[in-house]
Amino acid sequence: MPFKMTEMVGCEFPLFAFSHCRDVVAAASRAGGFGVLGAVSYTPEQLEHELKWIDDHVDGKPYGVDVLIPEVQAVDKSITADAIIAQIPSEYRDFVRQILRDAGVSEEAGSPQGGNQAPNTSLGQELLEVSFNHPVRLIANALGTAPPEMIAAGKKHGIPVAALVGAKEHALKQVEAGVDIIVAQGGEGGGHCGDVSTVVLIPEVVRAIKDAGADIPVLAAGGIMTGEQMAGMMAMGADGAWCGSVWLASPEAETTEVFREKMIAAGSRDTIRSKHRTGKFSRQLKSEWHERWESAGLPALPMPLMSLLAEPVLRAIDQAAVGGNAQAQALSSYWVGQGLGLVQDSRGVGTIVQDFKAGLARGFEDLAEAVE
Amino acid sequence: MPFKMTEMVGCEFPLFAFSHCRDVVAAASRAGGFGVLGAVSYTPEQLEHELKWIDDHVDGKPYGVDVLIPEVQAVDKSITADAIIAQIPSEYRDFVRQILRDAGVSEEAGSPQGGNQAPNTSLGQELLEVSFNHPVRLIANALGTAPPEMIAAGKKHGIPVAALVGAKEHALKQVEAGVDIIVAQGGEGGGHCGDVSTVVLIPEVVRAIKDAGADIPVLAAGGIMTGEQMAGMMAMGADGAWCGSVWLASPEAETTEVFREKMIAAGSRDTIRSKHRTGKFSRQLKSEWHERWESAGLPALPMPLMSLLAEPVLRAIDQAAVGGNAQAQALSSYWVGQGLGLVQDSRGVGTIVQDFKAGLARGFEDLAEAVE
Repeated sequence: MPFKMTEMVGCEFPLFAFSHCRDVVAAASRAGGFGVLGAVSYTPEQLEHELKWIDDHVDGKPYGVDVLIPEVQAVDKSITADAIIAQIPSEYRDFVRQILRDAGVSEEAGSPQGGNQAPNTSLGQELLEVSFNHPVRLIANALGTAPPEMIAAGKKHGIPVAALVGAKEHALKQVEAGVDIIVAQGGEGGGHCGDVSTVVLIPEVVRAIKDAGADIPVLAAGGIMTGEQMAGMMAMGADGAWCGSVWLASPEAETTEVFREKMIAAGSRDTIRSKHRTGKFSRQLKSEWHERWESAGLPALPMPLMSLLAEPVLRAIDQAAVGGNAQAQALSSYWVGQGLGLVQDSRGVGTIVQDFKAGLARGFEDLAEAVE
Repeated sequence: MPFKMTEMVGCEFPLFAFSHCRDVVAAASRAGGFGVLGAVSYTPEQLEHELKWIDDHVDGKPYGVDVLIPEVQAVDKSITADAIIAQIPSEYRDFVRQILRDAGVSEEAGSPQGGNQAPNTSLGQELLEVSFNHPVRLIANALGTAPPEMIAAGKKHGIPVAALVGAKEHALKQVEAGVDIIVAQGGEGGGHCGDVSTVVLIPEVVRAIKDAGADIPVLAAGGIMTGEQMAGMMAMGADGAWCGSVWLASPEAETTEVFREKMIAAGSRDTIRSKHRTGKFSRQLKSEWHERWESAGLPALPMPLMSLLAEPVLRAIDQAAVGGNAQAQALSSYWVGQGLGLVQDSRGVGTIVQDFKAGLARGFEDLAEAVE
């Protein structure tokens, strides 16, 4: 019997590869999985360029796009990016300048990027339009309930809409909103996350959807790096796995070589769920960045101020780290889940997909041997 | 093929039921699982009494005992219990008195229990001796590396020794120390816990033991309340499941009816990993107890002071809660894991064991349908 996700999105194997990097997306799809491009940070022009590249490199295999359409778009159009950046308290600007100075990294490179235009809050909608001009087979909404425009656009183009959730209650809201696929991510996962763990969240969401009389597939996310774990999630009722961290150590990924080496050396206790990057809890590789903020006792700024302050600084740190600056290497971090403890080397994306297939079969055989 | 644990400890089904309550232990073993009595808080006389009762009610089925033998026993024998209690700062005593007063609960009932004797630090060893006079089939060490005396005693009596761990590194230490079974508990579990989640910890520990060239079975713990989850854990390489929280809502459990009702009503986001009960991180049902401590900004006392202060207070609160005191009900708490979100009613222990058997088969069939 074919996987349910094969019917829905056309992939051979229900392993979803979320990545900000087109190379990972194309390689995962080519290997029989399903690449999903995280497009939140792109302009429409950039996204067009990336999707064109994917179309040229995916050998006709299916892939998807993850955009962010906020449920409520209440930003005042008269406020410029410069005015938003001006809201960052000087104490915080001084603090990150000090971090850069202490590490011997150019302070200028780490300055927030402003502009005299209003930030484009309808960007998500534009990204969606760009996406539908390509043969995408899935649209995902990264955060919050998928808004009606997104669901309607998916229906119009016949493309399933997926939504990420970290709690049963959010899954039920998404089902009510009309999404086609739920990605349930446990708190051990990288990036924005709740605090319910994958092993509890998956059966909880599967049961809640069933109890609500709905028939919506669930993809399991959070800590999954092997086919045996994927088998385990499918025994708990999931229809496949959605992975982000497992690709980060591969040569195709957008990560720096410094981060890849840190990731391979790190154990499952070396991540932190911190607000000191985006203003909301997101799981990251623990580094001196977090130690500096904790010892300073400065609470995180709200979204989007924290990102506007932190991202240019962390990019400057990454550049210096790649250049061999040891202090910058100690500060360097990225979003990654606890599952990094299961990553022991840098493998190509295609190899990882094949490893998952073999691991799924092995997990099934192990279980069969025990119960039959 | 029989379960590996069946050979080792004689149970029909590798579901381990950890409980402080003899009724749960006997009922789980009678149903084909394996009950393990948490004996840490018993005197040798009490334990003798409880094990005699279990022997009389277990229908000859196998069961085990969980004791606590600290690795290092460096307590000064000249220090009395009164002297230890005197170390609790008056600010803390005043604070818990205020909690009791505000809730209309007798302050006297909540006072720490002292005495002019030294606390018995060789208690674990005595409990072990009591246990070996009964037909126990497993000895578990609740916290820290199993000490050489325990391993030796197990070998002498031909009884396997299990140890609980929350991190891969601790598992490897235990294997080196010579334990026979590893119980790996994720941070979503109730009671003392680390912060690595079950879905990451189990494959990590299984792989580390294999890479170390050892052949030690692993029981999965943390968040497991259903047979489907157990199937998932076995697909990831576990040899069975070790559960504590799932029994707490059953009529046989030591919990109060107030707690059982709160547990059934609670969701997976209603637990907290807090130091404000024992002095170490342990996962509990979130209640006004934790809110009071957090808003007071008082850091937890170290072990054993925090328990000596908190336990009598929480017992007095529980009594008042059962008596109908609404404020005491709001304060009432107990150790429980995130999996409580999967418990929707109060079922007998025997029924829960049968549910697990059916769920394991269902999980296997679901996976088989997807992959075959």
